[in-house]
Amino acid sequence: MTQALRLGIDIGGTNTAIGIVNEQAHIIWSFNIPSKGYENVQAFIEAIYYAVKNNITQEEFDKINSIGVGAPNGNYYTGNIEFAPNLDWKGVIPLAKMLESLFAKKVVVSNDANAAAMGELLYGVAKGMKDFIVVTLGTGVGSGFVANGKLIYGHDGFAGELGHVIAVRDGRQCGCGRKGCLEAYTSATGIVKTTKEMILNYKGDSILKNQNSSAKDIHDAALQNDPLALKIFEYTGKILGQTLADAVAITSPEAIILFGGLAKAGDYILLSTQKYFEQNLLSIYQNKVKILLSTLPEANAAILGAAALCD
Amino acid sequence: MTQALRLGIDIGGTNTAIGIVNEQAHIIWSFNIPSKGYENVQAFIEAIYYAVKNNITQEEFDKINSIGVGAPNGNYYTGNIEFAPNLDWKGVIPLAKMLESLFAKKVVVSNDANAAAMGELLYGVAKGMKDFIVVTLGTGVGSGFVANGKLIYGHDGFAGELGHVIAVRDGRQCGCGRKGCLEAYTSATGIVKTTKEMILNYKGDSILKNQNSSAKDIHDAALQNDPLALKIFEYTGKILGQTLADAVAITSPEAIILFGGLAKAGDYILLSTQKYFEQNLLSIYQNKVKILLSTLPEANAAILGAAALCD
Repeated sequence: MTQALRLGIDIGGTNTAIGIVNEQAHIIWSFNIPSKGYENVQAFIEAIYYAVKNNITQEEFDKINSIGVGAPNGNYYTGNIEFAPNLDWKGVIPLAKMLESLFAKKVVVSNDANAAAMGELLYGVAKGMKDFIVVTLGTGVGSGFVANGKLIYGHDGFAGELGHVIAVRDGRQCGCGRKGCLEAYTSATGIVKTTKEMILNYKGDSILKNQNSSAKDIHDAALQNDPLALKIFEYTGKILGQTLADAVAITSPEAIILFGGLAKAGDYILLSTQKYFEQNLLSIYQNKVKILLSTLPEANAAILGAAALCD
Repeated sequence: MTQALRLGIDIGGTNTAIGIVNEQAHIIWSFNIPSKGYENVQAFIEAIYYAVKNNITQEEFDKINSIGVGAPNGNYYTGNIEFAPNLDWKGVIPLAKMLESLFAKKVVVSNDANAAAMGELLYGVAKGMKDFIVVTLGTGVGSGFVANGKLIYGHDGFAGELGHVIAVRDGRQCGCGRKGCLEAYTSATGIVKTTKEMILNYKGDSILKNQNSSAKDIHDAALQNDPLALKIFEYTGKILGQTLADAVAITSPEAIILFGGLAKAGDYILLSTQKYFEQNLLSIYQNKVKILLSTLPEANAAILGAAALCD
């Protein structure tokens, strides 16, 4: 019996993870290469190609029937990476075309949040769902919206930027140039900013007062029941819950799945998010929409998600 | 050549409009019956049936191959009207089932805003589009989101409640029990409320100061260049534009189509909405998304929309 294999490629700012996924959702081979330091983008594409070609058998290579790529600003319709701020190559990079000409296989490109959504659909907690949202809470905040069983790419391929919905009108400065975006509050940098702001007015004791805290430090402090850390998660969950309640009024999903750095804080982020989410939902949606944490192992999720894009 | 006909039924709080639409998008027959005053819902359903049966030929009746119904709280998946506040019958009404058993034809039910979206797709300015939003600005504010060429009904059939996205956090009381919903600002009652609030602090002259203004009065005043009326449209467009900019970050549509009472104010609402919309868009969406006014004649739009639901 021949098995169709999928190749998943996750291009991050620093590393590119490459892996082969079989029909049982196992990553049967994976490899990492740096994303930076190449002479040009062609050299990078070739590095991906030879990383695969030189490390698997010809038989395995032939069984790969599709390639999915999660990349910053990856556009599903064009197959291009368009003006990604954190990659070495500026402007528009015809990524799908370049990979197709080397691999001679079908290539689908999208961003990492959409890849995460497809990963949950094919391999994760969204299996069998037709309407759900994945929110990636990492260095930035991304999202993938699935409706009627399909990813919403939108007219231009760039749908699903929940991180840039305004969570607080005229609020905190966001990296995108606007103010009050969800990303400015619920990303790793957002929660660090919240900590800095809260420390200023916080009268009680806290481990966080004596350090320049990272998102991980805040989580560690919460694990020790640090009252300020708990307040920070409460506030972050409030902002996230409110914004998710508004998103429900648009696509009315079965579930919202949280993924990435902040989601690793587990109940600390989940319980306050759920509380403010339910409080802010229109009555017809109350007690209907699950908020779940992704269960895909982080090391594999990016490759699984990219591989799932081909569906 | 036989023509397939569609039957469109729009159930409003007061009147129910019934019409037959041919393949050229013409309403070849229409009829109105009251929505209230029946002994029970079965009597209402029969009134619809006989209004059709007694007024068209058997040949025409046989050509009807589907029936679409736009109804308050109409649920696409169940075919039920569920807890509609403005109808005589409370609880869950199995509308599709009841109509199907009388007509012996396929029946699709949804709410009026989703019907409006399908009407624009089949017969209006959204023809040929795959990703767009219709916003109905009437007594309430509704919306229909189309992505990948299909209406987003969501997990429960109640997606697309843009009128209950929070436009102003902790803002004006909304009829839904929550605060700051878009509907509290950009519906007919919303703009009247804005007028009352603005008059209190308005020092200049205005026609609106001496009357208990309706939404139509405000439009009439704007037509006469009344400065307060223009301010009211500016403010209403600001709230609408801001909220639409956030909706774009979710589904990235090709166009947003405004429909209903307030949309009839034309440029008064369109220009300020467009201005604040563009100002508030994430840069990747700027100058890409059209805001259009519906061009469907209002008298026909409800029937066309309902008829279009069957697609």
